[in-house]
Amino acid sequence: MSKAKTLSDLQKLINAAEENGTIEARWEAVAAVDPQLVQQLTHPDFVPNSANVSLLASGTPVSPGAASGLLCLSAESVLAADERGDKTVLVCSETTPADEIGMRLTEGIITARGGISSHAAVVARGWGVPAVVGVSSLEIKNDHAIFGGMKINEGEPISLDGTSGEVFSGFKEVTASEKIPELEKLLDWADEIRGERIGVLANADTEKDLVAALAFGAEGIGLCRTEHMFLGDQLSLIQRFLNEDDSSTENVLEELEETQKSDFVELFRAAGSLPVTVRLLDAPLHEFVGSSQPDSEYNPMLGTRGVRLALLRHELYRMQARSITKAISDLVEEDREPSVLIMIPLVVERKELQIIRSWIEEEIRETAKITGLKDLPQIGTMIETPRAALSASEIAKEADFFSFGTNDLTQMVFGFSRDDIEKEVMDEYLKLNILPANPFKILDEEVVVPLIAAATRAARIAKPGIEVGVCGEHGGDPASIDLLVETGVDYVSCSPFRIPVTRLATAQSLIRQDKN
Amino acid sequence: MSKAKTLSDLQKLINAAEENGTIEARWEAVAAVDPQLVQQLTHPDFVPNSANVSLLASGTPVSPGAASGLLCLSAESVLAADERGDKTVLVCSETTPADEIGMRLTEGIITARGGISSHAAVVARGWGVPAVVGVSSLEIKNDHAIFGGMKINEGEPISLDGTSGEVFSGFKEVTASEKIPELEKLLDWADEIRGERIGVLANADTEKDLVAALAFGAEGIGLCRTEHMFLGDQLSLIQRFLNEDDSSTENVLEELEETQKSDFVELFRAAGSLPVTVRLLDAPLHEFVGSSQPDSEYNPMLGTRGVRLALLRHELYRMQARSITKAISDLVEEDREPSVLIMIPLVVERKELQIIRSWIEEEIRETAKITGLKDLPQIGTMIETPRAALSASEIAKEADFFSFGTNDLTQMVFGFSRDDIEKEVMDEYLKLNILPANPFKILDEEVVVPLIAAATRAARIAKPGIEVGVCGEHGGDPASIDLLVETGVDYVSCSPFRIPVTRLATAQSLIRQDKN
Repeated sequence: MSKAKTLSDLQKLINAAEENGTIEARWEAVAAVDPQLVQQLTHPDFVPNSANVSLLASGTPVSPGAASGLLCLSAESVLAADERGDKTVLVCSETTPADEIGMRLTEGIITARGGISSHAAVVARGWGVPAVVGVSSLEIKNDHAIFGGMKINEGEPISLDGTSGEVFSGFKEVTASEKIPELEKLLDWADEIRGERIGVLANADTEKDLVAALAFGAEGIGLCRTEHMFLGDQLSLIQRFLNEDDSSTENVLEELEETQKSDFVELFRAAGSLPVTVRLLDAPLHEFVGSSQPDSEYNPMLGTRGVRLALLRHELYRMQARSITKAISDLVEEDREPSVLIMIPLVVERKELQIIRSWIEEEIRETAKITGLKDLPQIGTMIETPRAALSASEIAKEADFFSFGTNDLTQMVFGFSRDDIEKEVMDEYLKLNILPANPFKILDEEVVVPLIAAATRAARIAKPGIEVGVCGEHGGDPASIDLLVETGVDYVSCSPFRIPVTRLATAQSLIRQDKN
Repeated sequence: MSKAKTLSDLQKLINAAEENGTIEARWEAVAAVDPQLVQQLTHPDFVPNSANVSLLASGTPVSPGAASGLLCLSAESVLAADERGDKTVLVCSETTPADEIGMRLTEGIITARGGISSHAAVVARGWGVPAVVGVSSLEIKNDHAIFGGMKINEGEPISLDGTSGEVFSGFKEVTASEKIPELEKLLDWADEIRGERIGVLANADTEKDLVAALAFGAEGIGLCRTEHMFLGDQLSLIQRFLNEDDSSTENVLEELEETQKSDFVELFRAAGSLPVTVRLLDAPLHEFVGSSQPDSEYNPMLGTRGVRLALLRHELYRMQARSITKAISDLVEEDREPSVLIMIPLVVERKELQIIRSWIEEEIRETAKITGLKDLPQIGTMIETPRAALSASEIAKEADFFSFGTNDLTQMVFGFSRDDIEKEVMDEYLKLNILPANPFKILDEEVVVPLIAAATRAARIAKPGIEVGVCGEHGGDPASIDLLVETGVDYVSCSPFRIPVTRLATAQSLIRQDKN
């Protein structure tokens, strides 16, 4: 049977299964839908013939959907426009992690450089922001952009189609994303098949992300990164903390603790009683102190990140543990039932987790004593270094749960820095058929997947019933999901806009697995 | 029995064993010597009361032995002094890979910054160059150095003791390194015990290295890095090659091939019929094109290195294969019997090795057809990425031999960039007892050693009799050797100045292993 690839295919399929009325027919319908169709149907499109705009340029379509807004040449001007309530499109040469706050708020992204795996592409796909990259005719000037001779000033309207790669001058009306009944039905059936066998959670850092994720059917948060809580207004605080002694930074820590607590309260309240897995700070040092500093690192990906920074600056994770505990306590006071888990990044060794855990538990206990909190959050670990995966049975003894970070794990198992290898080398690996696929897109079936399976098994022997999940881009990729379902993980977590396709893909994998 | 820690202890021990005359007595003598004593006895010392010099400063002693020479403030001025026949001491703030040619030629190294694991320390120990680092009172000026207020001009004499960490003004006479008969006897007995069970080879890149290694008892070269063949006069050639298309670089390649051939002829001739394992180019791109280039990498350690560069620039390894084959052919013409092996760095996947191997074999066969060479070199691979170690049984099918690169393997298994982690984080890991030792000094017993053992076993099942060795700093560390002997590797390879201690340490490990 060929897969349903269009909305009308889908409608026929769903109607036929409903007429048939059996459970088997539903299963067959779920199995018969191309996951790409779900991707397509969950992104906005232009209203047909909406306006008389002209085609400006074409580039590589890297994040599907249509978008229209005022041209902004920097993340800062996106922020300013957003404060005024204007919709924007970010147009720049390329993006960096420093632009992420702006990228989150814009309707669409257009870059002159980059390809399917550049920073702009990966971030935009993650957040469901339509994007076109590698627009070679685009030149960025001080206060305007030029598309092959055609000048558009900052603040003038521009539109893009992240599915076709086209860029237009002027506004084009975008369809309001409305629910398609047949798609909703399909995903409900997929959830029935999935049942309790495997969870679908979201990578969501803010209340806004979470609301989007819940609308798409997420069952909670598998990864809440806390990096954004140290950026923006808080950046100067964390910089002061990192540049001074622990002793002189009490006020800084109090301020950070207070603002993080408010962020957590907002997020936990929106989550209700659904699980929220908070990853403590994991940012390469240079993103805070600047890479031009004398202490900048040669290989920041293998440097002072995650738990390593926390071991050097003991107060950092303690502060985060206090603010999380206080936020939970506030919500319990409101008679809510938050379900919060704390996760430690970049662990390599059991004793490391044991020490950090003891510090965090101490803060949680002492804070809970004051607030009267009874149910304390679980503490788990990311498994993202080869050493952690290879000593899973030891590390499991200190962890309430595991979450595989497949991006870093792939990076270190191969010795591939994503930023560097995808520039040129990966193309050659694919062209020469050395690898069947880019392992950052589809999990490496030969080594990384067996490593995850072995670590999962080892952890469950050491600690029966330990919860094991996967967070990372792979959790939203149908081919990777198929491999992950086989390893027996308890849940996958992916970015909000990938939740629908992940709900379908997990159900399809389970159907295939049951048949074998 | 307490270990022999001084020359007089050693002399008594050897004399007693000789008087006893039994094999058991020899074994006991070998087991009873502290490896540190061998380290100490194989490095030069000051002649007692040799001159009336004054103590200038103290720093961290990182490479044992005494040295005296004219103060040079840069690697370039070391080279210039060396051409004039002058002995030098390099004095600088810190060293980088670009200084290595100068570091090789100097008598001793003094740096203001750095510690036991800084670049200067690691390189100096490897080459047996006495060194003192972290001399905090040292200031480097344009044409002079200041040691706590005391000015020494470039070209004035200076001395250092890499065992005590002291720095002196003026010349101090250094003992000629002469053979100590009891030490020679001890190492001969150690070799008897070792027999054919485990080989001790040298990491040696040049004829000069090899001569030193052979004098210390090396049985061949386990790692000849070819990076130096692309530096110095050849740097502009490789830069031209990397910046241009393959098509326009024929002349560049011919020139590189010719100069590399001469280097190889010299090295292979000096090696006689002992094995020489040549590793094809493995340098991070930025060392050739410069890190200020727009294409500089974020994490060069995980970037376009080794076989990856060779996959992008197909002619690179082909050129090296031709020059090696021609060099072998020349020596066969001279009725010599060179034993050369070719080694591919940074492999992650069987198909990658298969492709590169086919390119190299093609060049070897075609060159051999012209020169009439019959015995073609074996082709093996480094195992230094976790993925290679975890797919050893697959990769073994394409490899004539394995050589574990324990430095990179440790780096990627932990996700530790040596340059970054040893600055601050490692101290904290050791202070908090998270790790029992720095895994770059003593191999990680819990994960890296079992990984090597498992990969060795898997490779031997896939290809019975496959030769498996280890090259890297760990091959010269007694505690690591003890762990490596247990994994069943066929040889260890270490820097020339560590050969004596490695001969002793391997024998001691075998004695312990036989007892258990």
